[in-house]
Amino acid sequence: MTIERVLLDYGSGGQASHRLVNELFLKHLGNAVLSVLDDAARLDIAGPLAMSTDSFVVDPIFFPGGDIGALAVHGTVNDVAMLGARPRYLTCGFILEEGLPIEDLEKIVASMGAAAAEAGVLIVAGDTKVVPRGMADKIFINTTGIGEIFASPAPSGHRAAPGDAVLISGTLGDHGLAILSTRQGLSFDAPVASDCASLNHLIVKVIEAAGDVHVLRDPTRGGLATTLNEIAGQSGVGVFIEESLIPVKPAVAAGCSFLGLDPLYLANEGKFICILPEANAQAALAVMRADPLGADAVRIGVVRAEHPGKVVMTTPLGGQRLMGMLEGEQLPRIC
Amino acid sequence: MTIERVLLDYGSGGQASHRLVNELFLKHLGNAVLSVLDDAARLDIAGPLAMSTDSFVVDPIFFPGGDIGALAVHGTVNDVAMLGARPRYLTCGFILEEGLPIEDLEKIVASMGAAAAEAGVLIVAGDTKVVPRGMADKIFINTTGIGEIFASPAPSGHRAAPGDAVLISGTLGDHGLAILSTRQGLSFDAPVASDCASLNHLIVKVIEAAGDVHVLRDPTRGGLATTLNEIAGQSGVGVFIEESLIPVKPAVAAGCSFLGLDPLYLANEGKFICILPEANAQAALAVMRADPLGADAVRIGVVRAEHPGKVVMTTPLGGQRLMGMLEGEQLPRIC
Repeated sequence: MTIERVLLDYGSGGQASHRLVNELFLKHLGNAVLSVLDDAARLDIAGPLAMSTDSFVVDPIFFPGGDIGALAVHGTVNDVAMLGARPRYLTCGFILEEGLPIEDLEKIVASMGAAAAEAGVLIVAGDTKVVPRGMADKIFINTTGIGEIFASPAPSGHRAAPGDAVLISGTLGDHGLAILSTRQGLSFDAPVASDCASLNHLIVKVIEAAGDVHVLRDPTRGGLATTLNEIAGQSGVGVFIEESLIPVKPAVAAGCSFLGLDPLYLANEGKFICILPEANAQAALAVMRADPLGADAVRIGVVRAEHPGKVVMTTPLGGQRLMGMLEGEQLPRIC
Repeated sequence: MTIERVLLDYGSGGQASHRLVNELFLKHLGNAVLSVLDDAARLDIAGPLAMSTDSFVVDPIFFPGGDIGALAVHGTVNDVAMLGARPRYLTCGFILEEGLPIEDLEKIVASMGAAAAEAGVLIVAGDTKVVPRGMADKIFINTTGIGEIFASPAPSGHRAAPGDAVLISGTLGDHGLAILSTRQGLSFDAPVASDCASLNHLIVKVIEAAGDVHVLRDPTRGGLATTLNEIAGQSGVGVFIEESLIPVKPAVAAGCSFLGLDPLYLANEGKFICILPEANAQAALAVMRADPLGADAVRIGVVRAEHPGKVVMTTPLGGQRLMGMLEGEQLPRIC
């Protein structure tokens, strides 16, 4: 592109839009399906399918460990994977603010292309709108994905059962703290980076090794505590976790302490909760730990019939306290 | 909802988000699939599939003939249908500006629910982000849809062939002029309303009646002229249309003349171009004209081998001129 900033023309559907598609989007995201450029993409895929959508408005758009483009791919890939599915196809919808540097847009789109390649998904359809300066903040991206469900029965938030073990695939709070510290210009002794990553390949391995996995969910907005509350409510069970077992990186713990944040309510973008029969927990953990994305995986608790709909945390001193859902908003525009 | 305006909390993923989902979204959009509320929706659908995505940023959000919610459903339903598919499932991603009146949001969501019911599609997954005041303009909506392709071979912009007839399902420019006149506070002798509507049921009837339809495409952004240019380029053919045959409502023609706009470059949201073998054109037209959404359908031209990649318009005086793609942007935020 010879022009340096996004113009309103790029959203017109006319010549300028076509140049943007041909010179930038197809360059980084092109594949045999997308390049047909009909009103819709033609996909050969067999059901049952998992389908999920997510809009990304993260601020800042570039952060340690990723950017809004990679995040938009990872986030939707993960949501599809959590249903026991192999994500196959993604669409992307861009809302651009007039004046966005083309260089930034290209970096973001290239990053989406790399993330999609890594996850093994194709971007098959797209849309770009441009709004006048001041009517949006730089760039918002929607991604929507579909994948083939291979797990049978498929994991669901409704399937947690008393006696199940509760596993987490790694440390908590990395993404949330990375965004917040970048936004506020804070730095800590140890660098904190977003954990954003596509978990789909690891999910396949876990299900193959552990058999029937009852629940998979990625603790994004609202963090571990909120996500476990959702599951407890959907399944009508109590989720009991032990505070001392919950993995948090020292730098994240220090940053949270400094900022008055609880890492259990911070967003994660490369972690998943896995709830499954106790008998299969070790097999699942072994597979996770053998993968760089699950190296810090641990068993953090159990599911019980008591306290249905609640999340109960046991503290190191033996006390118990209820962990509620996130109230209010700690961090707007975290993803 | 007892609160009058959208708060940042509604995008947190926590308690407030859950209330918004339960009290507003599920009320208007709820169905057995959506109500599961897992990370992704489980869909029983058989390929081949058509998949399309569109983000809507239209300004104003309420306009004669529709609103951003109905438009977001119709627009994606139509894109999926244009591949010769029955649209089945839609996702919706909301980006809300803090302070948006809840009443407006509810009106928009109710309108989406009604549009989805009319089109016969289910909204199966959703996402809501809230950005601080001034970081977006009221509300942006992404919809992404999938449907089952039933036409074989499926229509495609690459299949226009010399000898084909070119049909248009109705009058041009209604949506574009309705938006622009609302935005500018203009009114004309006859009221101008958006034509936004879901065309999927009519498309099924046309394909059943006419057999192999080579191209279906809805002339949205960039209008008829730009869309025909896309098809001419993709198929490597010349598209020849007759100016005197192109249907434009008198009020739209008058408004365009007053504002210096060309209705052939204005967006439509309830019309489609149909290109098919001449022998089947009358059957297709008869089906269109029997449906309120195609009452003004006419044959406007032919496809030829000459002038490949170009759109040639014959004027009433017998002259010919090339109709290029839209250059620049007549109307930002038209959809």
